[in-house]
Amino acid sequence: MDKIQPSILPGFMELLPEEQVLFDRIKNLISTTYQKYGYWPIDTPQIEKDEILFAKGGGETTKQIYHIAKGEGDSNQSLRFDLTVPLARYVAQHASELAFPFRRSHIGKVYRGERNQKGRYREFYQADIDVIGMNTLSVLNDAEVPAVIYEIFEKIGVPGVHLHINHRGLLNGFFASIGVEEPEEALHAIDKLDKIGSEKVRTLLAEAGLRANQIDQVLAFIGVDDPTPAMERVEQIAQTMGDGPGAVLFRAGWEDLQAVYRAMIGFGIPEEAIVLDLKITRGLDYYTGMVYETFIDGYESIGSVASGGRYEDLASNFSKLKMPGVGMSIGLTRLFYQLRAADLIRPEKGTFLEALVIPMGSDEVPVAIETLRQLRTCGIVAQMDAEPGKMKKKFSYADQLGVRFALIIGEAERNAGTVGVKDMKSGEQSPLPLAEAISLMAGVLGKDWK
Amino acid sequence: MDKIQPSILPGFMELLPEEQVLFDRIKNLISTTYQKYGYWPIDTPQIEKDEILFAKGGGETTKQIYHIAKGEGDSNQSLRFDLTVPLARYVAQHASELAFPFRRSHIGKVYRGERNQKGRYREFYQADIDVIGMNTLSVLNDAEVPAVIYEIFEKIGVPGVHLHINHRGLLNGFFASIGVEEPEEALHAIDKLDKIGSEKVRTLLAEAGLRANQIDQVLAFIGVDDPTPAMERVEQIAQTMGDGPGAVLFRAGWEDLQAVYRAMIGFGIPEEAIVLDLKITRGLDYYTGMVYETFIDGYESIGSVASGGRYEDLASNFSKLKMPGVGMSIGLTRLFYQLRAADLIRPEKGTFLEALVIPMGSDEVPVAIETLRQLRTCGIVAQMDAEPGKMKKKFSYADQLGVRFALIIGEAERNAGTVGVKDMKSGEQSPLPLAEAISLMAGVLGKDWK
Repeated sequence: MDKIQPSILPGFMELLPEEQVLFDRIKNLISTTYQKYGYWPIDTPQIEKDEILFAKGGGETTKQIYHIAKGEGDSNQSLRFDLTVPLARYVAQHASELAFPFRRSHIGKVYRGERNQKGRYREFYQADIDVIGMNTLSVLNDAEVPAVIYEIFEKIGVPGVHLHINHRGLLNGFFASIGVEEPEEALHAIDKLDKIGSEKVRTLLAEAGLRANQIDQVLAFIGVDDPTPAMERVEQIAQTMGDGPGAVLFRAGWEDLQAVYRAMIGFGIPEEAIVLDLKITRGLDYYTGMVYETFIDGYESIGSVASGGRYEDLASNFSKLKMPGVGMSIGLTRLFYQLRAADLIRPEKGTFLEALVIPMGSDEVPVAIETLRQLRTCGIVAQMDAEPGKMKKKFSYADQLGVRFALIIGEAERNAGTVGVKDMKSGEQSPLPLAEAISLMAGVLGKDWK
Repeated sequence: MDKIQPSILPGFMELLPEEQVLFDRIKNLISTTYQKYGYWPIDTPQIEKDEILFAKGGGETTKQIYHIAKGEGDSNQSLRFDLTVPLARYVAQHASELAFPFRRSHIGKVYRGERNQKGRYREFYQADIDVIGMNTLSVLNDAEVPAVIYEIFEKIGVPGVHLHINHRGLLNGFFASIGVEEPEEALHAIDKLDKIGSEKVRTLLAEAGLRANQIDQVLAFIGVDDPTPAMERVEQIAQTMGDGPGAVLFRAGWEDLQAVYRAMIGFGIPEEAIVLDLKITRGLDYYTGMVYETFIDGYESIGSVASGGRYEDLASNFSKLKMPGVGMSIGLTRLFYQLRAADLIRPEKGTFLEALVIPMGSDEVPVAIETLRQLRTCGIVAQMDAEPGKMKKKFSYADQLGVRFALIIGEAERNAGTVGVKDMKSGEQSPLPLAEAISLMAGVLGKDWK
């Protein structure tokens, strides 16, 4: 029979077991941290009705969508492209059954038919937290959300993580104060500063209709080539600004941002890890208050590894209820790819399977099974090698599996009531009663099993 | 603006947060048990090439498939309908990078456009374990796999779980020994015994071409109306059977099954939880040795809650390598639905969020944040209520959230360096220094935080 070439579609991530264990370790770490902070886990269908997914209208996303064609053709259902639309649908649909503010976490796969390129995936995990209020939502939530994200990166062990924060009200107020009433295009321009440089931003701002003196004011505000800390610069501007409607908006945003900044520190983020970054804006049709991006020192080219912000009305397409919220999202699949590529994380042998039990013959199988049971009871992850084969093959299997210990049970050991404990790292082997063997292994493996 | 009715597609499961926490508890329990036994977790794309999914040819599944239509129409890719085809593709594709026997676990969503009915889902989790050998695979694996499954049901706390086991070689040998050389139709018939009764099975067996005396022998073999334990009955048959090729097959299967049975007990399954059930056959074009189903006493109508068996050549469509294997699968979504419907599991208030911290005014916010931090450090899952509102509203929120404790911080508490600890169950409230409050709460909540 002709064989079909086993392969997966381009743009999908599939990991070998050791890499998968590492990926899952990070995924679990995110999940347990979200839950430690009291964000309820939810899990929604990966397929949603098109009318839900496109309630906001089409745009770029529709081109990237994975439509479902069931039986007779188009069925008006598609794979979700993010976890935010499903969240909006969820809180609108179940509003009467939820307690607000509603704090939820969601880790799941989403789908986008992006152009195929390195580090971009068409199926990827997002790991989101959001707090959704009913009518109001305290800005303290805007401080806690990035604190959760920061704790996660700390636990993963990534050094030099900085949270870049900004405030849409502050930006809008500033632009209004210098006479730019429709700042969308200008905001898009400044968001690109790091990518294209200040000269090109000048050109874009001019194209957006800003006069030369306005452009100067914008670049001075952002702090291009200005060593003054942004917090000081904004404080000076707030004090010298007049009393127009722009100034009111600016000062309200500034107050909001300062309260969030103080509370972020209260929640445990080191002061030096928070950067007021006046050029970040995020999605313009969505965020209305705080916005966040997360960068790793020396790896800024990766881009933001966790982003989000405050929005005023999450479910306006689905409900008359006004539900403001704040949230952040980690693009887990891309993050994993980037952290691996930068060698900031790596799989370690022996972190999954720890021991291989090798009965030499069928007479030793009952002892081997009992040995396995006791190892597992003591929290040592173990399996048996019951296949036919020579010792060399069995030790090579133990090596491939990355176990630290091989436990050999032959006739001599069975008669003596011992197991032959081989430390695969040192190569040392000694016969020990099982209880002593477990005690030794537990010590080396760092198990707290008593 | 007109609102779009928020809803999900029929046949999809979506849970409220409390139910989700219960679902996740069971999902995590399965995952950690699989891993405790050394089954490496894998995670494959949910979309596969059609040539992979349908390598075996079409059949019933093709009608139920969720095709992907990207952009210009049919794109020859679909959502997976099980985790076994992806496993076959995975081991064939990565054979040179895996250590065999390869033990893998996989918990993921699969898609089948089934007829819409209660308790049947179109998107559902499967939770699989399999051991894949290269050329050979010891039958000890056939004993360990059901032991893992049994431990999971024990941990979930479902009483009266029985593993029904059988052996395809035993069945084929028996049918050959009574002169039925092509037993497929007859096997299909006996598999239906519990559903349709023995009279209808007689009719089906006659339709399958069996003579009256053969039908009698089949029903006697299965043990319809026979109180003799199946193990004894088969042993008697094995001894009295002649020496034809059917008998050889029968005795080989019987030996195999007995070895598995003994090892299952060795691996910790209570003898009384194992039932030799000679009528179960499972998928005929797939399993070749042991087959398993799992039933709950008093809830037999649910059907098997975990099934599987031994197969001789997993990846024959994708590879020239011969890879025998054995595995079992839990249909988690359906299982959850059934266990909930039977009230065998239920969500308990307070098992997720444990404490709500309530600052009375903005002056108390810094103390509230510090309180939250300390609670979280001690493993108490807590959140703050920082919204405006009266105490009544806040206590009602605490009730909705199901927390056991509300911690009130007003001016008096702030000045005295205490928190007002309210036990939401007893209604008692007393001011305590934070350290004492945590000690009290940890005791009540059963935390081991020292």
